[in-house]
Amino acid sequence: MAVNVLFIFLCSILVFVMTPGLAFFYGGMVPRRDINNTLMAVFIMCCVPVLLWVICGYSLSFSGNNWNIIGNLHNFFLNNVKFNAGAATTGGSITNIAFLIFQMMFALITPALFVGAVVERINFRFLILFVVLWSLFVYYPLVHIVWGGGFLQSLGVLDFAGGLVVHINAGVTALLLAYFLGPRLIQEKGSPKSLSWVLLGTTFLWIGWYGFNAGSAFAINGIAMQAMLTTTVATATAMLVWVILDVCTKRNATLFGICSGAICGLVAITPACGFVSVESSMIIGAIATMASYGFITVIKPKLKIDDTLDAFGCHGISGIVGSILTGLFASKAINPAVTHNGWLAGGNFHQFGIQLGATLFTVAFTTVVVTIIIVVLKQVMSMRMRHEEEIVKREMADLQ
Amino acid sequence: MAVNVLFIFLCSILVFVMTPGLAFFYGGMVPRRDINNTLMAVFIMCCVPVLLWVICGYSLSFSGNNWNIIGNLHNFFLNNVKFNAGAATTGGSITNIAFLIFQMMFALITPALFVGAVVERINFRFLILFVVLWSLFVYYPLVHIVWGGGFLQSLGVLDFAGGLVVHINAGVTALLLAYFLGPRLIQEKGSPKSLSWVLLGTTFLWIGWYGFNAGSAFAINGIAMQAMLTTTVATATAMLVWVILDVCTKRNATLFGICSGAICGLVAITPACGFVSVESSMIIGAIATMASYGFITVIKPKLKIDDTLDAFGCHGISGIVGSILTGLFASKAINPAVTHNGWLAGGNFHQFGIQLGATLFTVAFTTVVVTIIIVVLKQVMSMRMRHEEEIVKREMADLQ
Amino acid sequence: MAVNVLFIFLCSILVFVMTPGLAFFYGGMVPRRDINNTLMAVFIMCCVPVLLWVICGYSLSFSGNNWNIIGNLHNFFLNNVKFNAGAATTGGSITNIAFLIFQMMFALITPALFVGAVVERINFRFLILFVVLWSLFVYYPLVHIVWGGGFLQSLGVLDFAGGLVVHINAGVTALLLAYFLGPRLIQEKGSPKSLSWVLLGTTFLWIGWYGFNAGSAFAINGIAMQAMLTTTVATATAMLVWVILDVCTKRNATLFGICSGAICGLVAITPACGFVSVESSMIIGAIATMASYGFITVIKPKLKIDDTLDAFGCHGISGIVGSILTGLFASKAINPAVTHNGWLAGGNFHQFGIQLGATLFTVAFTTVVVTIIIVVLKQVMSMRMRHEEEIVKREMADLQ
Repeated sequence: MAVNVLFIFLCSILVFVMTPGLAFFYGGMVPRRDINNTLMAVFIMCCVPVLLWVICGYSLSFSGNNWNIIGNLHNFFLNNVKFNAGAATTGGSITNIAFLIFQMMFALITPALFVGAVVERINFRFLILFVVLWSLFVYYPLVHIVWGGGFLQSLGVLDFAGGLVVHINAGVTALLLAYFLGPRLIQEKGSPKSLSWVLLGTTFLWIGWYGFNAGSAFAINGIAMQAMLTTTVATATAMLVWVILDVCTKRNATLFGICSGAICGLVAITPACGFVSVESSMIIGAIATMASYGFITVIKPKLKIDDTLDAFGCHGISGIVGSILTGLFASKAINPAVTHNGWLAGGNFHQFGIQLGATLFTVAFTTVVVTIIIVVLKQVMSMRMRHEEEIVKREMADLQ
Repeated sequence: MAVNVLFIFLCSILVFVMTPGLAFFYGGMVPRRDINNTLMAVFIMCCVPVLLWVICGYSLSFSGNNWNIIGNLHNFFLNNVKFNAGAATTGGSITNIAFLIFQMMFALITPALFVGAVVERINFRFLILFVVLWSLFVYYPLVHIVWGGGFLQSLGVLDFAGGLVVHINAGVTALLLAYFLGPRLIQEKGSPKSLSWVLLGTTFLWIGWYGFNAGSAFAINGIAMQAMLTTTVATATAMLVWVILDVCTKRNATLFGICSGAICGLVAITPACGFVSVESSMIIGAIATMASYGFITVIKPKLKIDDTLDAFGCHGISGIVGSILTGLFASKAINPAVTHNGWLAGGNFHQFGIQLGATLFTVAFTTVVVTIIIVVLKQVMSMRMRHEEEIVKREMADLQ
Repeated sequence: MAVNVLFIFLCSILVFVMTPGLAFFYGGMVPRRDINNTLMAVFIMCCVPVLLWVICGYSLSFSGNNWNIIGNLHNFFLNNVKFNAGAATTGGSITNIAFLIFQMMFALITPALFVGAVVERINFRFLILFVVLWSLFVYYPLVHIVWGGGFLQSLGVLDFAGGLVVHINAGVTALLLAYFLGPRLIQEKGSPKSLSWVLLGTTFLWIGWYGFNAGSAFAINGIAMQAMLTTTVATATAMLVWVILDVCTKRNATLFGICSGAICGLVAITPACGFVSVESSMIIGAIATMASYGFITVIKPKLKIDDTLDAFGCHGISGIVGSILTGLFASKAINPAVTHNGWLAGGNFHQFGIQLGATLFTVAFTTVVVTIIIVVLKQVMSMRMRHEEEIVKREMADLQ
């Protein structure tokens, strides 16, 4: 067991790195005046969600089972957790303390993702309060439903490392936040300026993703290595596809495009990585990237929702595509935990139907609860920065 | 044993990362003209202390025992070290070569810490020579005294990962260097400009600290994971406390404050991390941050010592608080190596007294020896940059 | 075996980090207008070579043996690879999937190295096509010849982690590319501007190198730890030597010099790291740095080949020195895989002769094949950027 605990120790650190990585990824895309605010809005996720997870998040996610949608408070403040006993959820391959630390890191990065939709204009206090409520009413329930013994797990949904729980959830939340928040007052045109930081963020996210995806095997076995391989290949494919699309439509490749493609590939393979073959991972990476590319360049401009840094376009769309395609390509030959082969992997409609249903449920559930939280919270405080107009006016004056 | 060696391999790399991480943390805080000098002054610690450690540092720290304060030269140039035998200091959980590499990384980061007090004005050659003498007469003796069989270890002092050896030592050294060096000629006001680099440094330090703290268990066991968990929780608490203090006194949170809080939390939990519960780690993180915050904002302005980047305010103060509080919260239930429960953890004054005494000894010992080194060295060469005045004049001219 | 697979999982991630690390290292050296192009040219290596490796690279390198210089296509698209069986090349210490992922990362970083010679002026499409052909006709054959059962391996050449395969190969390729490409139209003088990025790149390269060198033991044993130790000591020595040379010839140390020295040390110890003692690693680091320093400052200005960022001066020269010195210092006492002690390690001329011959062969083989590829490819497309002159003119206009 020690070797698996060490594996999770390493993977937890890798997943931790994703949150500051995301700060740099987003920070590199915004105008100079908003960099510090953006970095802070992401990095604060290393604070509040950690404490909330220790207080009640772990308990609500993994202790007991109420109505198949939420846990209980038996492990409030980590009481009654036998730290060094085998974690039941992982079949005892690692200890409870290793499991709860690994899962804690997931509870940091997920809310960090949707910050990308609200930068440059959200009221910082609103964001903090929203994250608390969203953790309690959206994230912990979803973790429980998909991984903690809830009804989607009982139905046999396949979500290896968090397509539903992390990416679709965060993507949809991002879209709703952007919708209710309204667009930025000034929207700079042109590509991001600090591409070095975007690449640094991409690097941190990529290596962090190895912890995220391979670590979700909870043991350093063939499945974990398969996840590492499919993650790399899907990402490389996605990069290539984005470059080709850019060359075809805009005549030249850009560093920003390569980074965006990489993130789409990483997102798309997340739910599938431990269930599919290398060839399938190529297909998943390619299709998801085409979908995200199409959404961002064609559909989004018509939507008039200012998802500033494409949190939905990237995580939402590629997450949805990846989750559904898992139902086509999951294979018993790769992972015995697959009970029904995917439609295109020698099986039938069964798993595809489950994946489709689970994706729809996640979108619907997130939409309803997030909308309620935002509407309620807006009664209490302003959603936008207090002095935003002043900042903008000063900025305009500077430019003249 | 292989799994523990791999654990230390990983942790050594993580601790290594702290030194360049610190370079970025400090580099992000200084004015543009001093960035390269600052980065170089920190990064050179990856050079000189490595060679010194191999030549005599390991031997003086861990080979034999003279007067309970220093080792001998039996392992001069790593001679007579049985690389693949179990390291006695760790109870044989890892090999000697793994142990000496891990400890080598500690010998890099500790001198790097006090560079923060002397940036923008120290003579580079003075710094190098000081580091050599300080390693020989301060660092190796302290390592021996606390971890290598010296008298504080015999007394039963608890210093899990280096509160005394690393942080109090480096903090006090920083304060003395700043005192003897005098203040900068020009002191820019306002917050640091390159906050992206400060955040990057914080990130490297945070992940490096997992190697630092968990690795000090010398085996991937429950204690190591406990250290990882308490480290994370103490740091998150410290971030939150700093933000609250900032909001209460200055009306708004800043990215720099969040990063400073994180570092204080990491420092404070270092001596305690493998001995205390999660709840205790919250209290330690909170109290230390309040102490550092108070020192930096209230006491330091009156002291008139130009500890430029708060190496003492952060590492010294939080290190002292953490070391003493270890005597309140250390618990046999968490770690059987604790022989006397802390005062507030079901025990009595005993361990608290030892911690208090060891802290006072470390402060006194460091103060005396560092003062002697500085006074002697000042006879030989200038402590300040040769052309500093010229640089400043040119700079002033540029601004006009 | 699980612990060794975990070791290789970690080391593969570390080696992966080297490619973006190199992007920052090179990106920090070029003028502002070329940063994005430089980052992109390096980071694209995380895309194309990954796919090529999966399709045929692994197979051509490690499956079967044709004429002792190349494998076959039996494992085309990773077919017929028993992922979870022990990898024959490693004596079964790790699984095939772990081995192929680790080796994949080497296939990314090697072509990334020679990008440093062609920045600011190469046609991006030419570069991509060149990398594909170079992988097929230079890299996979060399891997096979040295590590995959080819004739140099049969002869008993020692190349622990890639002196021949990676550094000499990449260095010579860089020199040829720079020769055929011609110099930049504008060559800025003075030291690199973004030294923070250079240091960040150096940091990523350094920690990545631990995976590169120690990982090449394919098991977390005494040899791996020896490699880690010699890598650190050689690098620290090289830094010190570069600083001393700079102080002697230019009167002051620079951050750029320290970073350059570190890279030379890392390159030089690569072929030797698992075969030599700590003392020998110091000598290797020192001699290689002197050679690279001399080449870059004395010989290169006379050559009139614009190896822009010294890919040959650093990787080529230090790689050649390190490979040859391995024949002087390799020792059976350190590693039983050494069949003939080095000339200065109690042995005779035997191993030195092999190392010399293998180095000459690698230089000659690379020179011939790379020249053919460039000459052929130049028939098909321009080697230089299409609008380079325009860019330069616009730039000149901006400066006026």
